[in-house]
Amino acid sequence: MRRVAMVGAGMTQFGELFHLGMKDMLPMAISEAIDSVDKGFERTDIQAVWFGNLIPSDGFSTGIVADYCGLMDVPISRVENACATGNDAVRHGFMAIAGGHYDVVLVVGADKVRETPSSTTFWEWAALTRDSAWDFPLGLIAPSNFALHANRWLYESGNTREHLAMVAVKNHHNGVSNPKAQLRNEITIEQVLNAPIIADPFGLYDCCPQSDGAAAVLLVAEHLADKYTDKPVWVRGAGLGLDRVMHAQKTDLTTFPATVKAAKTAYAQAGLTAKDIHVAEVHDCFTGVELIDYEDLGFCEKFGAGKMIESGAASIGGRLPTNPSGGLKAKGHPPGATGVAQCLEIYQQLRGEAHNQVEGAVNGLTHNIGGPTAAGAVVVLSSQKG
Amino acid sequence: MRRVAMVGAGMTQFGELFHLGMKDMLPMAISEAIDSVDKGFERTDIQAVWFGNLIPSDGFSTGIVADYCGLMDVPISRVENACATGNDAVRHGFMAIAGGHYDVVLVVGADKVRETPSSTTFWEWAALTRDSAWDFPLGLIAPSNFALHANRWLYESGNTREHLAMVAVKNHHNGVSNPKAQLRNEITIEQVLNAPIIADPFGLYDCCPQSDGAAAVLLVAEHLADKYTDKPVWVRGAGLGLDRVMHAQKTDLTTFPATVKAAKTAYAQAGLTAKDIHVAEVHDCFTGVELIDYEDLGFCEKFGAGKMIESGAASIGGRLPTNPSGGLKAKGHPPGATGVAQCLEIYQQLRGEAHNQVEGAVNGLTHNIGGPTAAGAVVVLSSQKG
Repeated sequence: MRRVAMVGAGMTQFGELFHLGMKDMLPMAISEAIDSVDKGFERTDIQAVWFGNLIPSDGFSTGIVADYCGLMDVPISRVENACATGNDAVRHGFMAIAGGHYDVVLVVGADKVRETPSSTTFWEWAALTRDSAWDFPLGLIAPSNFALHANRWLYESGNTREHLAMVAVKNHHNGVSNPKAQLRNEITIEQVLNAPIIADPFGLYDCCPQSDGAAAVLLVAEHLADKYTDKPVWVRGAGLGLDRVMHAQKTDLTTFPATVKAAKTAYAQAGLTAKDIHVAEVHDCFTGVELIDYEDLGFCEKFGAGKMIESGAASIGGRLPTNPSGGLKAKGHPPGATGVAQCLEIYQQLRGEAHNQVEGAVNGLTHNIGGPTAAGAVVVLSSQKG
Repeated sequence: MRRVAMVGAGMTQFGELFHLGMKDMLPMAISEAIDSVDKGFERTDIQAVWFGNLIPSDGFSTGIVADYCGLMDVPISRVENACATGNDAVRHGFMAIAGGHYDVVLVVGADKVRETPSSTTFWEWAALTRDSAWDFPLGLIAPSNFALHANRWLYESGNTREHLAMVAVKNHHNGVSNPKAQLRNEITIEQVLNAPIIADPFGLYDCCPQSDGAAAVLLVAEHLADKYTDKPVWVRGAGLGLDRVMHAQKTDLTTFPATVKAAKTAYAQAGLTAKDIHVAEVHDCFTGVELIDYEDLGFCEKFGAGKMIESGAASIGGRLPTNPSGGLKAKGHPPGATGVAQCLEIYQQLRGEAHNQVEGAVNGLTHNIGGPTAAGAVVVLSSQKG
């Protein structure tokens, strides 16, 4: 396998971008990624593209990338894996270069969740990301779906809603410093606990916003890294795991097996373990999900996530800062872009250029858990080639 | 690059399968593919899956494959590229094995176009496969979209509607012998010419049906081919090409540049040319499209497709039989499955096991053109390792 270097990254603002379509956001993110490359990068250097996109809201996805982003002469495929789409798209770019098929690959992710096609409602899209015959009619859309897990986790672990609230407070705090974040206001534990309940135990501030946005990263084969930068970030591993689609068939709601499988693959490929990770962007679509992520990713012992967030270990300056970008919770969550934007944050962290810089970070991790907690994707990045 | 062998293939009936959901069709196609392997195949041999699916009509696509097909412990990604989805999914499986990532890969494709989710109409899905801001509101759905090309091709080439009709007659004739085909009746030139016009120059019999169905193929690395069969079929190349998404920006309507780009890559990887191909399954969503395909794939000279179909060269027994399965026109067209089922047909042809066997066929080709003629995918297969 060839080693794979990340040499550029860009993203749009995440938010309610009613004034921008896919045809606007995609060129913006791609151009920013190209312009970010230290020693220059020509659009014509790109040999293949993977596009992470949950909702083709402006029509035929790959054709729009080709036509509106000056990429007419390269293969472009759409990858979709619910909210794990972004990191799975990065996994495809990684595999294509590692396997020797291409030397320079663009991975771009985008979605407009705040504005689906005029004739299609949010509810229909929600149905497409879970079992639409059984679970969806029962009301198992995202908040209630993840609430089942969080409630059982609270019950079995002895942790409390205060621990959930600490995630929201931390990620809002981090988001304030990130100019691309959707929600840039500090909040307090009391505000989180007293907010209207959306799906018990999640109140309003336990939930991430729905967002529009795009993000892009540029990957190159090892022998080209020096051409583009003196500070490449190495994609050391990329794993994808699945789990049952129906909640009735999940035997343990306190874990996401899809995450565990994805992490196992990514760590093994990277030759690293959870103990080696210095900074992480994890899937915090709801506060309780970030806490379960800590355990599934090996950041702490089982049911130890409450103690981890309480101790400050997950904050900037702590043992393993998580979601320094603000996370889905504050930065926003356009599903196809989310994982790609996580990679951008870790790229900047490992180059020492992040807004909330984690000092001395060498190894980083990105993580999505998607659909009915049925798809997990993990990417391990490092400033060391390994 | 490692060589890649196809060692099994299966498919459901194509048709109006109102009694079957995705959760029925997927296990049926996958089980038939597994059972087709000469020397036996265990489901647990599968290490990764690519799922070609245009419309996630029963909900979260990859989770349904994992949960309902006994594939919980392997990565599963959805690939979508409009009507080129099937062959692009095969391309992903091919690249993953050739690049050394996995040794045994399942590629499955499925769609239910006759029955989209209850709250979503066909028109919404049609919008998602073209430019939904400009072309779709102008009425450029599939028939009118391809009719623009066929009309200009007829005008410039001097060919006639009779040539288009010959494609329909040939493919219906081939479909009669295929028990999995949706339309199994002979038709005449007169019936085609006298049928109601759908989008000039296409009458009813110039158009393929909309279909439900699933198809699956099993790919393995070279060193495992002998374990599974004494008659492997080698995936020698897989190309993907894009083109502009809006018709106003296409400079020549008599060709599909996406096909030309895809074919160039696939032929080069295979070390073969159009002259080496003995049997082909090409995209005949409308009769005129098959004729343009002949030219784009190099099967005949520019504007020579009328002469080719008229001469019998494309019929069983001719120089280069095309769509021996009945093609999209008679076999049916569930987009995600279509390209995968084309590979099944060529797999059986090159093993000497097809319903309409092309005697002595060694090299075969599959082809899709999708979306607003903006995505082309070509796979080259051979009974010779090369």
